[in-house]
Amino acid sequence: MATINQQILLASRPEGEPSADNFKLVEKPVPELAEGDVLVRNQWLSLDPYMLGRMNEGKSYAQPQPLDEVMIGGTAGEVVASRNAHFQVGDKVVGMGGWQQYQLVSGAQRGVLQKVDTARIPLSAYLGAVGMPGVTAWYGLVKIIAPREGETVVVSAASGAVGGAVGQLAKARGARVVGIAGGPDKCAYVKDELGFDECIDYKPLKDLKSLSTALKAACPKGIDGHFENVGGLILDAVMLRANAFSRIAFCGMISGYNGEPIPMQNPSLILVNRMKLEGFIVSEHMEIWPEALKELGTMVATGKLKYRESVADGLAAAPEAFLGLLKGRNFGKQLVKLY
Amino acid sequence: MATINQQILLASRPEGEPSADNFKLVEKPVPELAEGDVLVRNQWLSLDPYMLGRMNEGKSYAQPQPLDEVMIGGTAGEVVASRNAHFQVGDKVVGMGGWQQYQLVSGAQRGVLQKVDTARIPLSAYLGAVGMPGVTAWYGLVKIIAPREGETVVVSAASGAVGGAVGQLAKARGARVVGIAGGPDKCAYVKDELGFDECIDYKPLKDLKSLSTALKAACPKGIDGHFENVGGLILDAVMLRANAFSRIAFCGMISGYNGEPIPMQNPSLILVNRMKLEGFIVSEHMEIWPEALKELGTMVATGKLKYRESVADGLAAAPEAFLGLLKGRNFGKQLVKLY
Repeated sequence: MATINQQILLASRPEGEPSADNFKLVEKPVPELAEGDVLVRNQWLSLDPYMLGRMNEGKSYAQPQPLDEVMIGGTAGEVVASRNAHFQVGDKVVGMGGWQQYQLVSGAQRGVLQKVDTARIPLSAYLGAVGMPGVTAWYGLVKIIAPREGETVVVSAASGAVGGAVGQLAKARGARVVGIAGGPDKCAYVKDELGFDECIDYKPLKDLKSLSTALKAACPKGIDGHFENVGGLILDAVMLRANAFSRIAFCGMISGYNGEPIPMQNPSLILVNRMKLEGFIVSEHMEIWPEALKELGTMVATGKLKYRESVADGLAAAPEAFLGLLKGRNFGKQLVKLY
Repeated sequence: MATINQQILLASRPEGEPSADNFKLVEKPVPELAEGDVLVRNQWLSLDPYMLGRMNEGKSYAQPQPLDEVMIGGTAGEVVASRNAHFQVGDKVVGMGGWQQYQLVSGAQRGVLQKVDTARIPLSAYLGAVGMPGVTAWYGLVKIIAPREGETVVVSAASGAVGGAVGQLAKARGARVVGIAGGPDKCAYVKDELGFDECIDYKPLKDLKSLSTALKAACPKGIDGHFENVGGLILDAVMLRANAFSRIAFCGMISGYNGEPIPMQNPSLILVNRMKLEGFIVSEHMEIWPEALKELGTMVATGKLKYRESVADGLAAAPEAFLGLLKGRNFGKQLVKLY
């Protein structure tokens, strides 16, 4: 009897906010392996904000996710059958397996599976601190912010997979690091577990002035670098405290109600403070991945890069977990455990 | 009888818009030269927007202009008396002589006068195309925008001293160059005399949509680089047409009514288009001046860098000429001819 593969497809595009109705769970038998094929059983699925952009048509820089096809997504799993000399049953691999339990890779698709070593690094970390979120943090911090020792770096969404890595990489470079996160629990984690110097709970700070005042207290020497995962009020408040020659890496930007853009209140500060603002997508900078993964992997293996995971149980839980991620309900890297 | 030196002092700081009342013309005898002194008779005074920032207190990155002292300003003139072995009567020099007819430089003030060669370059050009405006254009274009052949570069205030040089430097690098200027005369000059590919008259284009539509027509392949001398609506419209990996150099930003900041409407485009935005002040990058001046000087001497001057006659005309500059009434580099 054939193995059954549960999959989640994009059933419809969101009108306004996405909902669970946009997804559809289906079951399909896993095909027989042809010569060269590798079958992976995915243990972990990564849920990431970029997926929302793919659900819509033409609003993002990337190709939209086709309807009625398996949702795109990063996965980590184990080879369970192989007719390919490069892969053996039991090999641990990461890839873009999508929202499904099994991934069949043909011999012609070269480079879609990377073998990883789980001796000192947990498999799931290859979807987080030693995967795309970690490399995203590394690129924005090292290549755009490039902090010097003693400079002050601010990170929004500091308890998340990206933000947490940004701060720890910045600390390793001798910077003073200030996180911004939502709620006392996340702030305590950012300070006490991740080792940031300060963490600002933005939730009670409802206007520009109160947020800017809190930043002033946490950053007595001003702000030299900022890793922006959020935008809006946080961006405006950071710019008010930015030093001359400060740098902002743009990694994530929320939209306002109904998806309209949120203005930047005072762009003339870019000139007054001779700032550099730069947006990036880490998948466009593959040349830096080996260097970044080497540092991130070593830090995880030696306990110097800490992270937290929010784990949803089973593929069927993926849509609700994804919607929760968009609302900031996760605490650390959002994963789905598939088996 | 002592030579009389006319000077213009800052009499008061502007409340709201500056006016002629903020300035005061005085006369002072030129002192006798001590050993080491050089006396320069200034032939040309440069008027520049940065002076407005200096007139106010604490609103700019630079030190404010002190009250009751000679207004700051770049000058070009001729040595008329010298007790310094490094300077001879007849030498042509440029410096920051201020709004006055004569400048006495002591031997202890080294480096404040630069001797220039007027064999193939007119003296006044050292205040424009081969001076600070030219180097400003060069830095923003070469170091921030860094256009590749075939890319499209947009320049606001294109008929000005900086904007005109930006476009011609970009053309020399094989870019398609589109100017933005106010009125048909300035646009005709930008296209026909300076050799830009297109020039958009922003005056009839009162909203974002019409300006963005005009930019789309003038930039069929989108915008790869933008040199921002203005900000506001123009910046927003350019960002709507910006290509992936485009660069914006921030050189000048207007304020709104009453000096409040004008928001940037859609900063999330920085991320969507992976843009780089960078503000700069050319006086902070002295290391590039020799390279920039070499290219600019060669281009002026060989007729490849064209420019226009608006000349006010006599020191007493400087305040009105400066106020006109702030309102865009000049056409090309604003100078005052002092003798």
